[in-house]
Amino acid sequence: MSVAEPGCRRTWQDRFAAVRAHSRWLTQPLSVEDHQLQSMPDASPAKWHLAHTTWFFETLVLRPHAPGYQVFDPTYAYLFNSYYEALGPRHPRPQRGVLSRPSLDEVWAYRTHVDEAVARLARDADADTWAQVVGTLELGLHHEQQHQELILTDILHAFSLNPLGPVYRPAQEAGVLLGASHGARGGVDEPNGAAWLRLGGGLTHIGHEGEGFAFDNEQPRHAVWLRPFELAARPVTVREHLAFIEEGGYRDARWWLSDGWACVQAQGWEAPGYWRAASDGGEGWQVFGLHGWQALDLDAPVSHLSFYEADAHARWAGARLPTEFEWEAALNTVSSGSGQVWEWTASPYTAYPGFQPTPGAAAEYNGKFMVNQIVLRGGSRLSPPGHLRPTYRNFFPPATRWQCAGLRLARDAS
Amino acid sequence: MSVAEPGCRRTWQDRFAAVRAHSRWLTQPLSVEDHQLQSMPDASPAKWHLAHTTWFFETLVLRPHAPGYQVFDPTYAYLFNSYYEALGPRHPRPQRGVLSRPSLDEVWAYRTHVDEAVARLARDADADTWAQVVGTLELGLHHEQQHQELILTDILHAFSLNPLGPVYRPAQEAGVLLGASHGARGGVDEPNGAAWLRLGGGLTHIGHEGEGFAFDNEQPRHAVWLRPFELAARPVTVREHLAFIEEGGYRDARWWLSDGWACVQAQGWEAPGYWRAASDGGEGWQVFGLHGWQALDLDAPVSHLSFYEADAHARWAGARLPTEFEWEAALNTVSSGSGQVWEWTASPYTAYPGFQPTPGAAAEYNGKFMVNQIVLRGGSRLSPPGHLRPTYRNFFPPATRWQCAGLRLARDAS
Amino acid sequence: MSVAEPGCRRTWQDRFAAVRAHSRWLTQPLSVEDHQLQSMPDASPAKWHLAHTTWFFETLVLRPHAPGYQVFDPTYAYLFNSYYEALGPRHPRPQRGVLSRPSLDEVWAYRTHVDEAVARLARDADADTWAQVVGTLELGLHHEQQHQELILTDILHAFSLNPLGPVYRPAQEAGVLLGASHGARGGVDEPNGAAWLRLGGGLTHIGHEGEGFAFDNEQPRHAVWLRPFELAARPVTVREHLAFIEEGGYRDARWWLSDGWACVQAQGWEAPGYWRAASDGGEGWQVFGLHGWQALDLDAPVSHLSFYEADAHARWAGARLPTEFEWEAALNTVSSGSGQVWEWTASPYTAYPGFQPTPGAAAEYNGKFMVNQIVLRGGSRLSPPGHLRPTYRNFFPPATRWQCAGLRLARDAS
Amino acid sequence: MSVAEPGCRRTWQDRFAAVRAHSRWLTQPLSVEDHQLQSMPDASPAKWHLAHTTWFFETLVLRPHAPGYQVFDPTYAYLFNSYYEALGPRHPRPQRGVLSRPSLDEVWAYRTHVDEAVARLARDADADTWAQVVGTLELGLHHEQQHQELILTDILHAFSLNPLGPVYRPAQEAGVLLGASHGARGGVDEPNGAAWLRLGGGLTHIGHEGEGFAFDNEQPRHAVWLRPFELAARPVTVREHLAFIEEGGYRDARWWLSDGWACVQAQGWEAPGYWRAASDGGEGWQVFGLHGWQALDLDAPVSHLSFYEADAHARWAGARLPTEFEWEAALNTVSSGSGQVWEWTASPYTAYPGFQPTPGAAAEYNGKFMVNQIVLRGGSRLSPPGHLRPTYRNFFPPATRWQCAGLRLARDAS
Repeated sequence: MSVAEPGCRRTWQDRFAAVRAHSRWLTQPLSVEDHQLQSMPDASPAKWHLAHTTWFFETLVLRPHAPGYQVFDPTYAYLFNSYYEALGPRHPRPQRGVLSRPSLDEVWAYRTHVDEAVARLARDADADTWAQVVGTLELGLHHEQQHQELILTDILHAFSLNPLGPVYRPAQEAGVLLGASHGARGGVDEPNGAAWLRLGGGLTHIGHEGEGFAFDNEQPRHAVWLRPFELAARPVTVREHLAFIEEGGYRDARWWLSDGWACVQAQGWEAPGYWRAASDGGEGWQVFGLHGWQALDLDAPVSHLSFYEADAHARWAGARLPTEFEWEAALNTVSSGSGQVWEWTASPYTAYPGFQPTPGAAAEYNGKFMVNQIVLRGGSRLSPPGHLRPTYRNFFPPATRWQCAGLRLARDAS
Repeated sequence: MSVAEPGCRRTWQDRFAAVRAHSRWLTQPLSVEDHQLQSMPDASPAKWHLAHTTWFFETLVLRPHAPGYQVFDPTYAYLFNSYYEALGPRHPRPQRGVLSRPSLDEVWAYRTHVDEAVARLARDADADTWAQVVGTLELGLHHEQQHQELILTDILHAFSLNPLGPVYRPAQEAGVLLGASHGARGGVDEPNGAAWLRLGGGLTHIGHEGEGFAFDNEQPRHAVWLRPFELAARPVTVREHLAFIEEGGYRDARWWLSDGWACVQAQGWEAPGYWRAASDGGEGWQVFGLHGWQALDLDAPVSHLSFYEADAHARWAGARLPTEFEWEAALNTVSSGSGQVWEWTASPYTAYPGFQPTPGAAAEYNGKFMVNQIVLRGGSRLSPPGHLRPTYRNFFPPATRWQCAGLRLARDAS
Repeated sequence: MSVAEPGCRRTWQDRFAAVRAHSRWLTQPLSVEDHQLQSMPDASPAKWHLAHTTWFFETLVLRPHAPGYQVFDPTYAYLFNSYYEALGPRHPRPQRGVLSRPSLDEVWAYRTHVDEAVARLARDADADTWAQVVGTLELGLHHEQQHQELILTDILHAFSLNPLGPVYRPAQEAGVLLGASHGARGGVDEPNGAAWLRLGGGLTHIGHEGEGFAFDNEQPRHAVWLRPFELAARPVTVREHLAFIEEGGYRDARWWLSDGWACVQAQGWEAPGYWRAASDGGEGWQVFGLHGWQALDLDAPVSHLSFYEADAHARWAGARLPTEFEWEAALNTVSSGSGQVWEWTASPYTAYPGFQPTPGAAAEYNGKFMVNQIVLRGGSRLSPPGHLRPTYRNFFPPATRWQCAGLRLARDAS
Repeated sequence: MSVAEPGCRRTWQDRFAAVRAHSRWLTQPLSVEDHQLQSMPDASPAKWHLAHTTWFFETLVLRPHAPGYQVFDPTYAYLFNSYYEALGPRHPRPQRGVLSRPSLDEVWAYRTHVDEAVARLARDADADTWAQVVGTLELGLHHEQQHQELILTDILHAFSLNPLGPVYRPAQEAGVLLGASHGARGGVDEPNGAAWLRLGGGLTHIGHEGEGFAFDNEQPRHAVWLRPFELAARPVTVREHLAFIEEGGYRDARWWLSDGWACVQAQGWEAPGYWRAASDGGEGWQVFGLHGWQALDLDAPVSHLSFYEADAHARWAGARLPTEFEWEAALNTVSSGSGQVWEWTASPYTAYPGFQPTPGAAAEYNGKFMVNQIVLRGGSRLSPPGHLRPTYRNFFPPATRWQCAGLRLARDAS
C-alpha cells in the first residue's frame, strides 16, 4: 500500500498522534520553569522545541495545503522559525530563552490547534492534496522526533548546571521509552575487549533506496569501494575509557588531533562530559544523567564524548574510528547498532554523490550544514522509538559533548 | 524613641511586612516563566531577587540571632549568595537563569518561612538581642528595596528582547506605587530650557549624619570645598535629547569621552536604550517601557542613558555634569530631586574620607565596588517608596543603560 | 638510480643548495623590518620562516645523524619549533612577531652554519648513514618549499594592512620564479564560459605510489569509485566572480552553507580578499598583490577566496565543487592544473584508507591536522618551482582567505 | 624673562635639541627589528613613538606657523596621528606594529627634516609668530618626554615576551639618565617599616598656578578640604610586597576590590608584573627589567603593580592609598617623591573644578580620557630628566601593569 493511497490515511493519523503524544510524555516531568531554560546558545528551551515542531507543520503542511486554515498567531512565524532563510527573518537563536511569552499554556494551545487542523486535513483532503501533503507530513514527524531527542539532551545540559542536580525521571520510571533496554549491554562477558567483526570490503552500496522514509542526506544510494576492515562488536565501555583516563590519555598530546589537543587544554577536559570527581572526597567519578548523579556503570558504553575524545581514545587503543561507510556496511550485515549511544565516525559530513536537497523550503533541512561537522551513526538511548535506520546520518561539530555520543573501534584487516 | 527600644518593635514589624509585601505586589504581574528570565549577566531573574533578599535575612539576622531557627534549605546558602566572599562560594552570576529549581512556589514558601521567623524574633527577642539585630534588619529592608528596583529594571530588559513586547502593567494600573507621580514633570512650562539654581560654594558638609538609616558609603559626613556653580532646576527632557540626536550628537566625536566614543561605535548606539525607530515606516521613535512600546513623551526626563551619553549631552549643551557634592549641596537646599530618573554625576564612586565599612559580612555591601563606577543621585520612578535620601549614592559602570538614568546640567558660576 | 645510492649525492647537494638559495631570492626584496612582521596569528614573520626551515634540518637531520655536529644555539629549539609536541615545548605561535632577537643577521648565520653542516654530511656520510638521512633531507626540502609559499602569502597579508601599500616586487622583476607563466591563462578565448572535461567514473586509483617524493598524506594509493562527472577546463575567472558579486551573490543566503553565511555577515565580506572599492571614487575594484594595488585582471583566475565563497560561487553557477578524487582523476588525465591558483575542492581533509604517518617526529607533519580543513588541489603562482604533483593535497580551514586560492567548477554527468 | 620674549629663543632651541637628542640616546641600544615591535595593543613600536612625536611638531607647530614649510610626507598624517579626532582619520592603534614601511631610516630622516624646520622657525619667526608658537612647542617637548618613558615601558614589555630575555642596557651603562639615582633608596635603614609624615589637613590648594609649564589637567589651582592624615615617607618595598605574597595576599579576597579580585583570578596573577619563579628550580623570584632577568632587590620600591594590587597591599597593611590631593599636599611639603616608581593614588582621574582644555586640537590631549582611569603621582626611574612636577598627574586604567608603578601607604590621622 503506497503512502499516498487513501487507505493508509488512518495509519498516518495514528502515527501523527503517537509522535505528538510522545512529546507530551517527554515533557511531562518538566516544570513550567524547566520548559523555559536555555543553558547555552546550542541548546533550546523545551517550550521552544514544542512550538518549533508545531510551526513546522503549520508552515509547511497547513498553510500551503489546508483550505481555510487560520494561522494560530502570526507572530509565531518569527518566533519559532529555526534557521530557514527562505521562510523569512527569525528570533536570534541565543535568545530563545528570553521568550517567557508566549506561555507554556499558549504553546500547548498552539499544539492542539495544529493537531486538530492536521487531523481535519488527513480526514478531508482529496487524493491529490493528500499525495502532495504526505511527504512533508512524514518529514515533520521525523523532524519532531529529532527534537524529542534534543529536548532530552538540552534539559540534561541545563540540569547539569544546577547545583541541586535535578532528576528528570527516576530510573525506575523511565522504562522502555527512554531506551534503557534498546540494545544489549556491551562488555560484560568480554572483560578483555570486544570481539571484532571482519568485513571483506570491495564495492559496497551505501545509502537509502526504495520504500520507507529517509532524509535527503542519506541519498542517493551509491557505490563506495572499501578495503577489508574489522569493526568492534560493541561500543567502547566506561571501563575502557576509564583506563584511557588513568593512563594519562587526557594529558598526552600523542593521541590527539591538533585541534582536539587545543580544545582539551582550553576547556580543561579531564574526563567525558557530565563526569565529576566524587564530591564526598572519596575516590572515583560520578556522572550526571537524566536520573541525576550516579556512580559510573563500568559496563555501559561511554558517552558524552566529543569527536576529539573518541578519536584520541581510538588511537590510544591501537585502533581508529570507522568511516561512516564501514559502519553502515558492517552494521547492515550483522546488527543494528548498540541503541545506547551515537557513535562518532571518522567521516566529515558531506553530500553523497548526486545529492539533491528536498525541493522547497525543506532544502535547507540538511544540505547547508555540510561543512565543519562529523557524522555519527547508530542512535542513542535518548532517541525516540521508531526513528532510526541503518542509513541514518546524525552530525555534530567535533567539539560537541552534550549529545549522547561515544565510539566503536575499527581497524584495517590484515 | 531609639530604634533599639522595645516600644518601636511594632513599627519594625509593620515596616518589615510592608517592604516584603511590596515585593509581592511588584512580581504579581509576572508569570512563572517571566520569573525565570535572565537576559544578560548583569541582570537576575525575579525569582532569584525574591530568594536572595530572603537569604539576606536568613543569613545575617536569623542564623546568628534567632534561637532554634531551622534553616529552610541548606543548599540555598550556595544558590542565593550574591557576592559575599566571606559567606562562602556561590552560584555563578551569569547562570542564575538556569535555576529552574527551586520552583517559584518553593521560593515563596522560603519567603513565608523567613517572614514568620523574623516576626517571631521581633516578638520574642530580649532587649540585647533586639539591639544587636535591628541594624541588620534595617539594612536588609533597604537591601530588599534596592532589589525591588532591580526586579523592574531587569524584567524591562528581558521583555525588551521579546518581539511580542510584553506589557508589565498597563499605565492605568501602575499608579502611585510605580512612581508615576513621584515628582513634578519637567519642562512643560519652560519650553526654552530649564531654570538654573545658583549656589555660592564654599565649605559644604556632605554625607549622612545623625538619626535615620544610611548606607556606610554615605558616611562619614565631611567637609568639601565647592566653587560657585549653577544647577538646572530639572533633568534634561526627551525633547532636549532629541535635539542632541538630530544635530548629530551620536556621530560627532567632539562631545564624547574617548571610552564613550569607542562604546558608541562598538555598540552602534544612535539613541537611548529602549528606543527604536517607529516600526511602521513612519517618522520618529518609540520607546519600550513597563507599559510596552509607547510614543515618546517629549516633556518627560530622558532616561536609559549611559554615563557616556549623559556626559556627551551635557558638553553639547555647553554645560557639564554636576559632581555628586554639587548635586547634594543644591538638592539639599531646594528640593529632593526629580523622582523620575537617576541622575548621572561627574563623580567616580569612591570612599568618603574616613569611610569605614559596616562591620561583619556586610562589609562587602558597598566598599568593594569603589572603582570603575560612577555615582548617580536622586532616584527614579522605579525606586520603591520610602527608600531614598538626599545623601543616597547609587552607582553603576559608565556604559550601563538598563537603569532608569538621565542627567541634570550644571555649570560654573561666573 | 636509487636515491640512496652514493652516485646521487651530488644531485642532492645541488638540490639542497637550489632550494635554500630560492629562500634567499624570495626574501631579498624585504627590509629588515619587513622580515619581522606577523600580521595575524596564522601568519609568521619571514625571519621565522627562514629560521624554522633551518631548525628542521638541524633537528631531524644533523642532530641525530651528523657526527660531532655543534648545535648553533640551544635556545633555537624552543624558538623555532612550530608544532611538534614530541620535540618539546615551543614559543607560542601568536608571539612569533615579538622575536626581534635573534636578529636577521643571526638567522642568516644560522642558515649558513646548517647549510655547511649538511654539505659536509652529504659529502662524508657512509652509505648506511646516507640511506637513513636522505628521506628526511628530502622531506626537509619539500617542507622549506611549503614555507617559501607561506613567506609570500604572509608578507602579502602584512603589506595589505599598511596604508602605503608596499610593493614586494614590481611585476616586471618578478618573472618566471614568481610563477607568472606557470600555466596558461584561462578564459581569454572562451568568453562565454569554460569548456568541460567529461570523465566516465568507475573504479579509479587515487594517491601516490612508486618512485619520487610524496607526503604521507598522499598515500597509500587506493581505489575510489566515481560516478561520471564533468570538470571545467580552467578555474573560474575574475570576470565570472564579478558577475556573482554584481548579481548580489554576497547578499543572498541561498548560495551559502550555513557556516559560510554566518562568516559573510560577521566579517562583512563583499568581495574576495584584498579587493577594495577603487579609492578615487571611480567605479570598480582594485586588488592588492605582490606588485601592489592593481586594477582587476578580468581574465585571470579569481583568487583569495575562502572555501565558503568558492562553494557559494559554484552553487550560484549551477554547478558544484569537485571532490579531490574527481580533481585528481581528471587532471591526471589531461593536464596539470592551472598553476595559477590553488583550487578548493568539496573534500574535507581526511586520512586515505590505510594511512600511516611518517615514522618519528615527522609523524606530526600532516596527520594531526586531519579535521576541520578542506583539501585544495593544483598549486598557485606563488608555489615554488618543482614543488607540485597531481597527487598533492594542500589543506586549510574553510574561512581562510590569505592563501592564493580559487575554484574550478564540476557537475554530475548526465 | 617671559617664555615669549625673543631673548629666550636660544634657550628654547637648546631645550628642543636636548629633548630630541634624548630620544636618540634612548633608542640607541635598539636594533632595527626591536624598533618594530608592538607586543600588545596598548604598547607601540619605538619607531612609531619616534615618528608620532615628530608628527606632533609638524602638525601643530610647523604646518600652521612655519611659512613655506614642506610637509615631509603627506601619508604620515594618517600613519602617525595617535588619537586626535579633530585631525582626521588614523591608522588603527593595534596595527602600528605592521608598519614596516616607512623604514627606521625614513623616520630618522623625518625627524631631521622637522628638527631643521623647527630650528629655522625658532631663528626666523617674528615676535608675534613666536609668541603663538612657543606654547605648543613646549607642549610638544613634554609630549615627547611622555613618549620617552613609553619607549622604555613598551620595549620592556616586548622583551619580556622573548625567551632570550634581551638586555636593553646593562646596569653599568644605564647610569644617571635611566634614573638609577633619581631618588634615595627606601627602606634600608627602616627595616620595620617606613616613617610616617603627618599632615594637619584643612583647606589646601592643589594644582598648578603661575610660571612654568603644566598640562591643562593640572589646572586650575583650587581649594580642597583635607582631614588630618599620615603618609609613608617612602614607597612600599619589594621586601614588604613579598610578605604580602607569602601571607597569601593574592589568594585572599578580603583585601581586594571586587573588580580587582576578578582580575587576579582571570589573569592568574600571583606576583607583580615581570616576576617569575626562579627558573633553576631554586627558591624565590626573578624580575625582568631593562637590564634583563635579575634577582629581587628587596629594598627597592616594588613596581609593575596594577592599581588593584596596590590597593590590596595597602588594605592588607592596615592602611590605604592616599588621594592625589593628600599626596600633593604632603610631597609639596617635604620632598619630591621617590623618583623610583609612579605611585598609584586612591583618586580616579577627573577634571579639576573649572578645568578648561587647551584650545585647538590639543584639547583632546588630556580631557577626553577623564573616565575609567586612576591618577598616579610622583614619577619613575624611567621618566626622563626634567619632566616632572609635584602637580603632575599621570593616569592609567586600574589593571595596567606594564608601567613602572608601585604605591605609598597612607592612613587617617587619629
